[in-house]
Amino acid sequence: MSFSAEIITLFPELFPGPLGASVLGRGLADGLWSLKATQLRDFATDRHRTVDDTPSGGGAGMVLKPDILASAIDAISPAGDKRPRILMSPRGAPLTQHRARQLALGPGALIICGRFEGVDQRVIDGRQLEEISIGDYVLAGGEVAAMVLLEAVVRLIPGVLGKAESHADESFENGLLEYPHYTRPQQFEGVDIPAVLTSGDHGRIAKWRAEQSQALTRKRRPDLLEPDKS
Amino acid sequence: MSFSAEIITLFPELFPGPLGASVLGRGLADGLWSLKATQLRDFATDRHRTVDDTPSGGGAGMVLKPDILASAIDAISPAGDKRPRILMSPRGAPLTQHRARQLALGPGALIICGRFEGVDQRVIDGRQLEEISIGDYVLAGGEVAAMVLLEAVVRLIPGVLGKAESHADESFENGLLEYPHYTRPQQFEGVDIPAVLTSGDHGRIAKWRAEQSQALTRKRRPDLLEPDKS
Repeated sequence: MSFSAEIITLFPELFPGPLGASVLGRGLADGLWSLKATQLRDFATDRHRTVDDTPSGGGAGMVLKPDILASAIDAISPAGDKRPRILMSPRGAPLTQHRARQLALGPGALIICGRFEGVDQRVIDGRQLEEISIGDYVLAGGEVAAMVLLEAVVRLIPGVLGKAESHADESFENGLLEYPHYTRPQQFEGVDIPAVLTSGDHGRIAKWRAEQSQALTRKRRPDLLEPDKS
Repeated sequence: MSFSAEIITLFPELFPGPLGASVLGRGLADGLWSLKATQLRDFATDRHRTVDDTPSGGGAGMVLKPDILASAIDAISPAGDKRPRILMSPRGAPLTQHRARQLALGPGALIICGRFEGVDQRVIDGRQLEEISIGDYVLAGGEVAAMVLLEAVVRLIPGVLGKAESHADESFENGLLEYPHYTRPQQFEGVDIPAVLTSGDHGRIAKWRAEQSQALTRKRRPDLLEPDKS
């Protein structure tokens, strides 16, 4: 069983989009994962295909109706479906590399893309939606957030990236930001590649890179070094 | 002068993609912002159009060459260009709603999408690239991250969203997560809309929503309530 992603969205035509390019697209073509996007409006029950209504209590924007969204979820992910049901939302738990790795080892995900002001809380509760946020900012809808989630997850599915070891040194995999990279030419605008990297001394190179990772993390992201972070 | 976004990428065909949909797409069509994506390979100098090379000091993956990327940056953003030059990178400063708002008030942005293992540090330093991260996870490349950045920014450009007030209550705009939303039907699977929201008492509704925002933020994101966060 390969990883099965299904999206509920008002813009199914945006998928696969960037998820169809490069290594992720090759993995999709090779059947290492699958992707299906479903139009939420197909579950509307009136002739205007209404999916939203004004917020109870007033305020700007529109809210996705619970009954229509629940119908879509139940059709795509019936009882017994082991895939987590994820709602992309700035109110959710922040996406981490750890959660991406967990998801990559699982059967897939049902991903709901919000639009407008939000989603009725009763469908979030009633369908046990896991709210995930990709960062502390607000988007126009959940579609690009769903692409981020899937890109972070799918590249971790075994076989999608070329070499297993290419994950090991990445940012966040060891709780640190990655060290700086250099490649040819040896000199660029008067600046040489740091001599240690061309020394051939693998022990010194590994030590230098670890020190650079530590120093960069301390400078830019001291929060990652706090003891409660994994 | 409208907001001018230019992207340097190995996958220019992915743009505008999701940025061409819905309100962002209408803003693009209406000239409220502009978008151009440039193929980095067009600046390669050999007949194989090489843009990357192996990392100095060894290790997996490939590194974008500083000379080729510098040529592309200099062609698109010559001296005097007031737009910030942004490199999407997990090593960068986390994107915040505050930074998105700053960028939306500015002339635009040059956005560089990394691929492979990373970008030679000398071009980051030499062209004063601002490294921005959209979250604590790793993607296959910077393209979807650039879409996230632009979506967060462009929706804040005056005129892109319909009503100015629809920003005010959003998550992060006041340092809190947003309160729960409800809409019709009045009863969904046996659960009523909270009575306060249908009371018509605007003072009580505002108080209830503020309390819900506080409680949700305390539960899910206590880090947002720490005094050093804005």
